[in-house]
Amino acid sequence: MAGHTVKSYDRELDTIERLIAEMGGVAEKMVVDAVDALAGANKGLAQQVVAADLRLDGLQRETEELAVLTIARRQPMAVDLRELIGAIRVAGDLERVGDLAKNIAKRAIKISAESRIPRAILGLRHMNEVATELLKDALDAYAQRNVERARAAWERDIDLDTLEDSVFRDLLTHMMEDPRNISLCAHLLFCSKNIERIGDHATNIAETVVYLVTGEAMPSERPRGRRVTDVDHDVAEART
Amino acid sequence: MAGHTVKSYDRELDTIERLIAEMGGVAEKMVVDAVDALAGANKGLAQQVVAADLRLDGLQRETEELAVLTIARRQPMAVDLRELIGAIRVAGDLERVGDLAKNIAKRAIKISAESRIPRAILGLRHMNEVATELLKDALDAYAQRNVERARAAWERDIDLDTLEDSVFRDLLTHMMEDPRNISLCAHLLFCSKNIERIGDHATNIAETVVYLVTGEAMPSERPRGRRVTDVDHDVAEART
Repeated sequence: MAGHTVKSYDRELDTIERLIAEMGGVAEKMVVDAVDALAGANKGLAQQVVAADLRLDGLQRETEELAVLTIARRQPMAVDLRELIGAIRVAGDLERVGDLAKNIAKRAIKISAESRIPRAILGLRHMNEVATELLKDALDAYAQRNVERARAAWERDIDLDTLEDSVFRDLLTHMMEDPRNISLCAHLLFCSKNIERIGDHATNIAETVVYLVTGEAMPSERPRGRRVTDVDHDVAEART
Repeated sequence: MAGHTVKSYDRELDTIERLIAEMGGVAEKMVVDAVDALAGANKGLAQQVVAADLRLDGLQRETEELAVLTIARRQPMAVDLRELIGAIRVAGDLERVGDLAKNIAKRAIKISAESRIPRAILGLRHMNEVATELLKDALDAYAQRNVERARAAWERDIDLDTLEDSVFRDLLTHMMEDPRNISLCAHLLFCSKNIERIGDHATNIAETVVYLVTGEAMPSERPRGRRVTDVDHDVAEART
């Protein structure tokens, strides 16, 4: 990012870079903590996740404002403009990852009194490990402006979809076995959808890396024909 | 939007304006059709919604590219820059509204063979009327750059949340009454969440109108303490 004639321009780009790295750190921790809080019925940890979201929102606003201000002030062309548009997009995706983690944490608070957390929670934990890894890979690809790494992360979103199929089936079975499980499992259904969407935002970040390095969009269809944030292929096989 | 020294700049802004109006029309129709397809078990209509999403995605890419190109070419300041950033945001929200309508349509296809659509579908229809109206109001506020109208739409997102509470409770009751309802109602739970999120994107559009006219963000907390796309306050009261 060095080499601009105007030194303060470089400083602005560096600040934006640092803000996004900070957002990435906060978001990753929120995702891990939210599912830990859910699985361990840990109300305190869940409340920390909810609180962290305010900080993430603040960082996003700061990033976006600085990026817009930099575009207006420096009037960048081509690759520099893509850098700034890319930063706005990545910050937006990370803000939404935080929202999704907060949703999970809020459900964790609601069900923290529940004594019978079903076996399907293991599937949720596994999904979350995949989502966290995907997010980390996408953020690394962004930090390194590494297109190959971004493409690899993009492809791996499939794993998460397969896992969600299986969690969905588990939860439905559990609901059918005993109506007393229905309310709890309805919460967990939404949690698994939230985790899947965290993976989708990681995939968006990977797409942004490709865009800002090459100037090109990824093919409009994701693996398995998905491009949207929460396509519902997952339930087709799960109907009983 | 007139009055710029460069005529072709005005033409670019007009084109962006027209693209967003077109996106709004497509998105509104998709939302209405998706829930009609769901309630009427109309597979053909649902497939039209899925097809329309491709067009909406194309329009979004076109809008975004033109806005970025215009920023790079014309190097606009202050209000003009906000216009272009605002256009990118609104196009992004409309694209996601389309994704959510597509999700509902895909579920409509899956459950079209189902003969016993539960009474809760009436609640879903009502939710969708409110969401559609909200979207229309937000888009009108955008077309007119009308801050008062935008603020009014923003406030009304509450209605939709209250309705979702009630639909959620209905669906859970229905699941508990008969385990054979569980799979179908799980689909409808996700549909009601999708409709709620359509309302959230309409609210985002209203926020963008305020930003692009005044340069200010809305307060960070929405009515009922919500800022995110799908906070789950709705289930707190519904647990049984």
